[in-house]
Amino acid sequence: MRLSQFHLATVKEVPADAEIASHRLMLRAGMIRRLASGLYTWSPLGLRVMRKVERIVREEMDRAGAIELLMPTIQPRELWEESGRWAKFGPQLLKIRDRKEQEFCYAPTAEEVITDYARNELKSYKQLPVNFYQIQTKFRDEIRPRFGVMRAREFLMKDAYSFHLGQESLAETYAAMYQAYVRIFTRLGLSFRAVQADTGAIGGNASHEFQVLADSGEDAIAFSDGSDYAANIEKAEALAPSAGRPAPAASLQRVDTPTQKTIADVAAFLKVQPRQCVKTLLVRGVDGLVALCLRGDHELNEVKAGKLAELPGEMVLAGEEEIRAACGARPGFIGPIDLPDSIPVIVDRDAAVLADFVCGGNVDGVHCTGANWERDARISRIADLRNVVEGDPSPDGHGTLHLARGIEVGHVFQLGPKYAEALGATVIDEGGKAQVMSMGCYGIGVTRIVAAAIEQRHDEAGIIWPEAMAPWRVAVCVINPKNASAAVNEAAEELYQALLQRGIETVLDDRGLRPGNMFADMELIGIPHRVVVSERGLAAGTLEYRGREDSESRTLSRDELIELLEMA
Amino acid sequence: MRLSQFHLATVKEVPADAEIASHRLMLRAGMIRRLASGLYTWSPLGLRVMRKVERIVREEMDRAGAIELLMPTIQPRELWEESGRWAKFGPQLLKIRDRKEQEFCYAPTAEEVITDYARNELKSYKQLPVNFYQIQTKFRDEIRPRFGVMRAREFLMKDAYSFHLGQESLAETYAAMYQAYVRIFTRLGLSFRAVQADTGAIGGNASHEFQVLADSGEDAIAFSDGSDYAANIEKAEALAPSAGRPAPAASLQRVDTPTQKTIADVAAFLKVQPRQCVKTLLVRGVDGLVALCLRGDHELNEVKAGKLAELPGEMVLAGEEEIRAACGARPGFIGPIDLPDSIPVIVDRDAAVLADFVCGGNVDGVHCTGANWERDARISRIADLRNVVEGDPSPDGHGTLHLARGIEVGHVFQLGPKYAEALGATVIDEGGKAQVMSMGCYGIGVTRIVAAAIEQRHDEAGIIWPEAMAPWRVAVCVINPKNASAAVNEAAEELYQALLQRGIETVLDDRGLRPGNMFADMELIGIPHRVVVSERGLAAGTLEYRGREDSESRTLSRDELIELLEMA
Repeated sequence: MRLSQFHLATVKEVPADAEIASHRLMLRAGMIRRLASGLYTWSPLGLRVMRKVERIVREEMDRAGAIELLMPTIQPRELWEESGRWAKFGPQLLKIRDRKEQEFCYAPTAEEVITDYARNELKSYKQLPVNFYQIQTKFRDEIRPRFGVMRAREFLMKDAYSFHLGQESLAETYAAMYQAYVRIFTRLGLSFRAVQADTGAIGGNASHEFQVLADSGEDAIAFSDGSDYAANIEKAEALAPSAGRPAPAASLQRVDTPTQKTIADVAAFLKVQPRQCVKTLLVRGVDGLVALCLRGDHELNEVKAGKLAELPGEMVLAGEEEIRAACGARPGFIGPIDLPDSIPVIVDRDAAVLADFVCGGNVDGVHCTGANWERDARISRIADLRNVVEGDPSPDGHGTLHLARGIEVGHVFQLGPKYAEALGATVIDEGGKAQVMSMGCYGIGVTRIVAAAIEQRHDEAGIIWPEAMAPWRVAVCVINPKNASAAVNEAAEELYQALLQRGIETVLDDRGLRPGNMFADMELIGIPHRVVVSERGLAAGTLEYRGREDSESRTLSRDELIELLEMA
Repeated sequence: MRLSQFHLATVKEVPADAEIASHRLMLRAGMIRRLASGLYTWSPLGLRVMRKVERIVREEMDRAGAIELLMPTIQPRELWEESGRWAKFGPQLLKIRDRKEQEFCYAPTAEEVITDYARNELKSYKQLPVNFYQIQTKFRDEIRPRFGVMRAREFLMKDAYSFHLGQESLAETYAAMYQAYVRIFTRLGLSFRAVQADTGAIGGNASHEFQVLADSGEDAIAFSDGSDYAANIEKAEALAPSAGRPAPAASLQRVDTPTQKTIADVAAFLKVQPRQCVKTLLVRGVDGLVALCLRGDHELNEVKAGKLAELPGEMVLAGEEEIRAACGARPGFIGPIDLPDSIPVIVDRDAAVLADFVCGGNVDGVHCTGANWERDARISRIADLRNVVEGDPSPDGHGTLHLARGIEVGHVFQLGPKYAEALGATVIDEGGKAQVMSMGCYGIGVTRIVAAAIEQRHDEAGIIWPEAMAPWRVAVCVINPKNASAAVNEAAEELYQALLQRGIETVLDDRGLRPGNMFADMELIGIPHRVVVSERGLAAGTLEYRGREDSESRTLSRDELIELLEMA
């Protein structure tokens, strides 16, 4: 591509609401332009990158035996009623009435339509397993679209759905998809981890998220340094401490803590460590309030809490009035001591081995010291309630956990029979009997990957694309082409053609910008390799080369350059 | 592709509402499955074909210098208000409210969004001309979706928009797009014509439609046998007859025609030819009714009529009550004689040269014979009002017109400043002055092409794909693979691999169907070349080959087969 024939539109200023690096850099590089909240036009430059991701995803899905089809974006309410998701999906589902007042939605995913397709097309076990996928525009009516295409409303997603008789077959395809995803993210050149994930509202058995590692990631993930264990922090188990609970040594005391409401305040005031305190949260249970107790330095894991049998399937904190009515004090002064018998006290594994701890006194402005379980406070049940922290032992028994932040770009699920059952998708088994199929589903956020890659790979000058995602791998820059000698222009043209002929995707920057502006543009849009053709270099028979991450340029012969590019 | 690994799903029965061949055959071949009215899932087979069309369209757009980008399908009301199309587009525009009660539409085309993009991105004449395109899903909420994907609600369209200063630049890009379209339809292997089209409601100067010829086509087109003139019948001019009007020879007579209301009835009753009759239509004018007179054997062209200065921009027939009030008779008995002076009488060129003609008598149950213009009936103006017919002279003066039917699959427009003016899309010209840009727009119905190709190319056995659109060019069929000798299976596999290695897209039908069913499937899905590997052929060192349009099979050596496929 000659850049003079391309519509490149880098800009200096970006709106203040561009909060994260990828959003700012995509706007500055001119990859996207905002049309409305959560809606973006992909410019020619942005689309080039997006299509590269799409192509790699498609190739690996095909290689893994998945079969591509294409479902409508607009889907009828009736099918979404069959699965129950018309109501359950909530306001993220964009609902639409057509001219005949029929109701539809803009699909955020396509379980219903593919299951409908499968119940019509699949009749016999002989047709299984089968794995259908599409790469299709999706819509989620986010309450607060932000971060550019990272959390846009309209986005491009690859969604695959496999159909099976029996768990073994599902597990096989699941493993094949897992491996395909590993290949996809490896080919894309991204640092990523496949982590065990909570299966959440979508249900099903097993689930892994593919997380692109980036400090700005919304998800916290935990991984072992002694094994390949990795999990979303929502899911990572905090093992019970190996040491037991010491015997009580102190007596229970009540102390005035008139203005100390947080653990940090109380610990500082009482000159103890937060880890010697117990914090107590009151949440709404199936039948009245439930107390959850954690060590003062630990964070409650809401997903784990939500799964407690005592809770109604999700964790909701009790309100201040409810708390006062039940315990006689306000939040900040609640503790496990003298709680009404009607309130179950569920204690985190680490909190349960504390002795002589500090906790709220269930009286406003009062905490207790020297508190001890059993002697002073009831334990209804011990459970894993907390987020793992750096240095925790790995739940698989090998190594120590470390934490990282990630951006979820892929997700594989063993859905099981959920949708097939709701929609009555059966096939005839070997014995001639109708059986409900099992399903797996496998998503990749194509447009999100573009943003995630930038979050992972950028510096103050701009984007640093991996080779596979770069709009072009090489930029051939001509200094001052309008005033350069014919020889310089010819040399640049010849090099450009020679690289193209070798299959090296190259852009010729023939726009005639000043060198500083031209180089800044090429760095901003993240071209991995830059070559400058100049009068001086031509005289010396050399080219000036700079890799995007190099700190300075170096001089290469033409052959050295080509060898370098062919190896990269 | 091994067909055993592919989800091929041909069916015998199709719903009664599949009225046209392409709809029936796409359902029978399993290319599409209906999800809801006007909404179709493209099966793996259908998608393969659609993607081939998409790829050729993309390659030719790129080759012509157009630059691909991608706009959202969901677009904000505000922009559509700026162009005035939010109201004007009518109920085909699918309108949507999001969770915040903001209004959007699902784009049926993208003039507004691209013009908004252009007004933000294009600042200087130096950036022009530029031609942006996308291949993106569109939605039109058709009142009566039918004919499968031919008139679906959700469909895939390539839409391009070019920006210019000056008509000359627009005309150049228009010509380049015209040529790109010629290449696209030529490469697709379709019989087509580029015809002059009416620019209709969208406005602008020049316009051509690309019509795939098919007897079932909705559009009538006229083309010359003596030149490259071709036009939509809406637009094709009927030249004035070369002979003048004969002098009156008969006297005006009134005759009773109590039950004869149509031209056919009257002509039969009076024993004259319909071409000796004048039919008179009363339509609503800018200021009262207007009479349009045509020869009895000619058809009114509503598009031409709609452009008459006397009409308000469209042609609407007057109602029976209006007609009786103005002329004293009911439709069927109206004629140009003794019409009130307030009614302009606009006469078609061919009707204007009649003498001694038959016409309505403006009294119920009465017609006139021996009527003559000027003597008996006023002519306010002579105009071209009729559809051309087979045998008319070509308007360019070369040859004779013939009629054909076509399916519109592409459309190029010189839009001019319409949208740029409405949205204030200007650039600075060479003199430093802001100037409104001119625009061209260029659409291709990607999914529609698939159906149109089938309308043009099918027989009772199924689809007859051109090489470029076929899901696979060659089917290698193994007779009874499970019971065949290892040698037969190996020979089939070897041939399959050899063809793939030569870049010949091949499918191996290893499903083990009976030969009759296997061949019927391959014919139904339209594979251009079929090769059978059998015990007998293997023994003789030959293959049984049959082209999709051949009446019988023939025996070829392996080399002959490969040569044939490489030439095809």
